[in-house]
Amino acid sequence: MNTTANQILSILEKGGTPISREEISTKIGVPEAEIKDSIKELRELGYEIEESKEAGYRLVQRTDRLLPYEVKRHLRTDFIGQRIEYYPSISSTTMVAKELLVKTSVSELNGIMIIAEEQSGGFGRLDRPWFSPHGGIWTTILLKPKMPVDRVFMLTMASSIAIVRAIRKLYRIGALIKWPNDIYIGDQKVAGILLEISAEGGEVEHCILGIGVDANIPQEALPKNLNTPVTSLMIEHGEPIDRAAFLAHLLREFERRYQQIEMGEYDSIVREWKSLSLTLDKRVKIKTPRLSFEGTAIDIDEYGALIVRRDNGKTERVFSGDCTPV
Amino acid sequence: MNTTANQILSILEKGGTPISREEISTKIGVPEAEIKDSIKELRELGYEIEESKEAGYRLVQRTDRLLPYEVKRHLRTDFIGQRIEYYPSISSTTMVAKELLVKTSVSELNGIMIIAEEQSGGFGRLDRPWFSPHGGIWTTILLKPKMPVDRVFMLTMASSIAIVRAIRKLYRIGALIKWPNDIYIGDQKVAGILLEISAEGGEVEHCILGIGVDANIPQEALPKNLNTPVTSLMIEHGEPIDRAAFLAHLLREFERRYQQIEMGEYDSIVREWKSLSLTLDKRVKIKTPRLSFEGTAIDIDEYGALIVRRDNGKTERVFSGDCTPV
Repeated sequence: MNTTANQILSILEKGGTPISREEISTKIGVPEAEIKDSIKELRELGYEIEESKEAGYRLVQRTDRLLPYEVKRHLRTDFIGQRIEYYPSISSTTMVAKELLVKTSVSELNGIMIIAEEQSGGFGRLDRPWFSPHGGIWTTILLKPKMPVDRVFMLTMASSIAIVRAIRKLYRIGALIKWPNDIYIGDQKVAGILLEISAEGGEVEHCILGIGVDANIPQEALPKNLNTPVTSLMIEHGEPIDRAAFLAHLLREFERRYQQIEMGEYDSIVREWKSLSLTLDKRVKIKTPRLSFEGTAIDIDEYGALIVRRDNGKTERVFSGDCTPV
Repeated sequence: MNTTANQILSILEKGGTPISREEISTKIGVPEAEIKDSIKELRELGYEIEESKEAGYRLVQRTDRLLPYEVKRHLRTDFIGQRIEYYPSISSTTMVAKELLVKTSVSELNGIMIIAEEQSGGFGRLDRPWFSPHGGIWTTILLKPKMPVDRVFMLTMASSIAIVRAIRKLYRIGALIKWPNDIYIGDQKVAGILLEISAEGGEVEHCILGIGVDANIPQEALPKNLNTPVTSLMIEHGEPIDRAAFLAHLLREFERRYQQIEMGEYDSIVREWKSLSLTLDKRVKIKTPRLSFEGTAIDIDEYGALIVRRDNGKTERVFSGDCTPV
């Protein structure tokens, strides 16, 4: 979206009353012909703009695309998402993030967000394909946190909390966190997190935080035959959600907790995570690259490891792997 | 070094007796003119080869360069260092490793080693410049360990142990490990380790392990005015060491412990590290990006964190940072 389209939009959305092309032209100091072009561009971007010869233009319906402009209208963060790169369709936001890492100066990196309407090559943990059709929220955020590498799971926890808080606040749905990195509504998955980190000498260098939310995906477009049943916010909420407002809210919730983590306030993150956990006090099957066993998830420690009591009474500290309820 | 030079070398080093050009030519099936060229190349690489009209060629002195051929003569590993890239002079072996990461297929990555005779832009932890002149051992090893991210410090520990073991075994010098990543002889630093990792969803993706050893560096070439006094193996041993033999031994010691780590045998690594520690039971000053304090280093835990008892009796778990004796 160019600057003129941007300015037109901010004028149109102020009142609900129509504004003439001439008036817009005067207000923003741009020739009428250019206004016309920009209106065309806005319509192509999905904005429904009425036009009448006498009265002028009127914004009837915002776009349903997750455009940076739309997210920023709602955004109340200091740095996360203040720079957004938007792609209608790409292989994956992670790949774009990795390219950005190479070509962006370190000082500008923190908080950059990549958004894709749809991904053709999305991946989850352990390189599992991640289904990411139109209607979802597929983003990657670049972060340069000041923290020791043994605390990185705090970032996954903060993201989980942020997603759950946004769902609870905006739609009054009791979403919960399934350890390590999934968000559930009832027994169906609605969102997932993928954190990649780079570290040096015990300190985190940078993080690539992927957040995927099944937002406005109808039942028939959701993947079937997955090990995990999935749902979407649209299905649970009963109508399509405002993805931009939801994402902006989520980012605000995340940023607040990110700042707590940087100040070393791990306790409050762990406490909040526990209060929103689907996993604790449940009987679970654990599968890591190194071992498999069943037991009861009794706690999560201050580094994000799940503490599982095996049937023989021995407790295991599980830092990564799959955790399935039994 | 080309194949012919390689073959010539293996013939020359078998006996001490001279071998004629004609005989070499017959043995390896290569024209005499090419033999002559390869002898020239070997001499340029630092091999001292005597030649007499009657008797032929004789290898008088091996090269003092850390050529892949020389390292491999001594190497007894399964995969570490089986592929070596050698550079007479580069900015840093880490940079080359990162380029290799991008252009090498994942299945071939594990164990690749980069060696430089000298580095113009070597760096240590926290981007501190690392002085790396001719005569040292400057290497980076690419690894794809199967391990959870909270155990990565085990790799730094395994490298530290390997360096100390090689020094003790080959030169009978009582080197010790200073937490987190330095090797000392007495109160002088002789080697350092730099581990960079990339991780995804709790599992390590790959590691870039940098090992730098002040091997054959004379007193006058060592940097002065550093916070830490430094020494070299040559100074401590009283004569130049065989760098290739030392490096090969070090790699063997490292690989053995690397395999233990992959099998989850953390205890034995921690135990061995403790037995070689310079830091434990000492009064230390700790400086991390988040806090500074003094206390007594009382233990290292099974994740590599230093346990320090402060004067007020409280113990701190330090995962990264500087640790200076007071």
